[in-house]
Amino acid sequence: MKTPEHQRHKPPSKLDRPRELVVACVAMRSNVNISAIARTASASGVQRLVLCGNARLISKIARDGDEQLDVEVRRTLPPVLRAFREEGYRIVGVEQATNSQNLQAFEFHRRTVLVIGNERLGISEEVLTLLDDVVEIPVYGMPHSFNAAAAAAMAMYEYCRQFPTG
Amino acid sequence: MKTPEHQRHKPPSKLDRPRELVVACVAMRSNVNISAIARTASASGVQRLVLCGNARLISKIARDGDEQLDVEVRRTLPPVLRAFREEGYRIVGVEQATNSQNLQAFEFHRRTVLVIGNERLGISEEVLTLLDDVVEIPVYGMPHSFNAAAAAAMAMYEYCRQFPTG
Repeated sequence: MKTPEHQRHKPPSKLDRPRELVVACVAMRSNVNISAIARTASASGVQRLVLCGNARLISKIARDGDEQLDVEVRRTLPPVLRAFREEGYRIVGVEQATNSQNLQAFEFHRRTVLVIGNERLGISEEVLTLLDDVVEIPVYGMPHSFNAAAAAAMAMYEYCRQFPTG
Repeated sequence: MKTPEHQRHKPPSKLDRPRELVVACVAMRSNVNISAIARTASASGVQRLVLCGNARLISKIARDGDEQLDVEVRRTLPPVLRAFREEGYRIVGVEQATNSQNLQAFEFHRRTVLVIGNERLGISEEVLTLLDDVVEIPVYGMPHSFNAAAAAAMAMYEYCRQFPTG
């Protein structure tokens, strides 16, 4: 291989259509995690991020993630999830649950709301009842779970792998 | 779908053989990122993590990630990368570079060292010359790059997707 050269500001990949992926976080413990999720979402081409409770983005971590990302903060998630469902979105939670499917084999619908659970409490029962699917990421070692921002990054990556141009 | 129930401590997925994936970080700016990478690596079943410089894991973030993960801190990466290559490992950098391949389509070798670059500086020229492959993750929006820990999570996820049982 010819020795590669670092290209710090490569132009982004083009989408043929706007991403129909929405990321929705339940009320989280950590604004650091929320901000990391915002950066990943924005860089993945996601246009809408729904946050709950006292969420506040830390711009040093979110970077310019909130510039082109439409960030809305709601009191709770159920009303907004119901509205998305009426618009034809499939509601997919990332969670270790009884009947969750393996993310590695999961086929996303293009119109998807990805629901990210709380770092400790996961996704509440009320929100779980609103999900169309639950996906989980296989864990192979301690601490037997992924950090919320890492899990969100993996799920967004998998979605983008399936819809590389939107 | 039957309403799912949260299962906080699901048993981990089994590997048929030990993971032959090593994660190696150049000297990084942030011990927060290193610690996040350690947690993701450990939960992915990775057994060896190589860090450089003044790296120190923050246990609150790495969680129990350093209990079953063999963490070694070196002064620089090139000698250890050369040693891995002699053991038959393929050295794969995660970086935006001139001739990098799209992670979404990249086929990993089972014996792989995944090299994670510095948050600002990426992977130095000296280390770039030691890589067999460079992979990059498509970015679709601002800030036109992923955080180092998010990029590492995506690359580890893609490796595990290709080798779900080791």
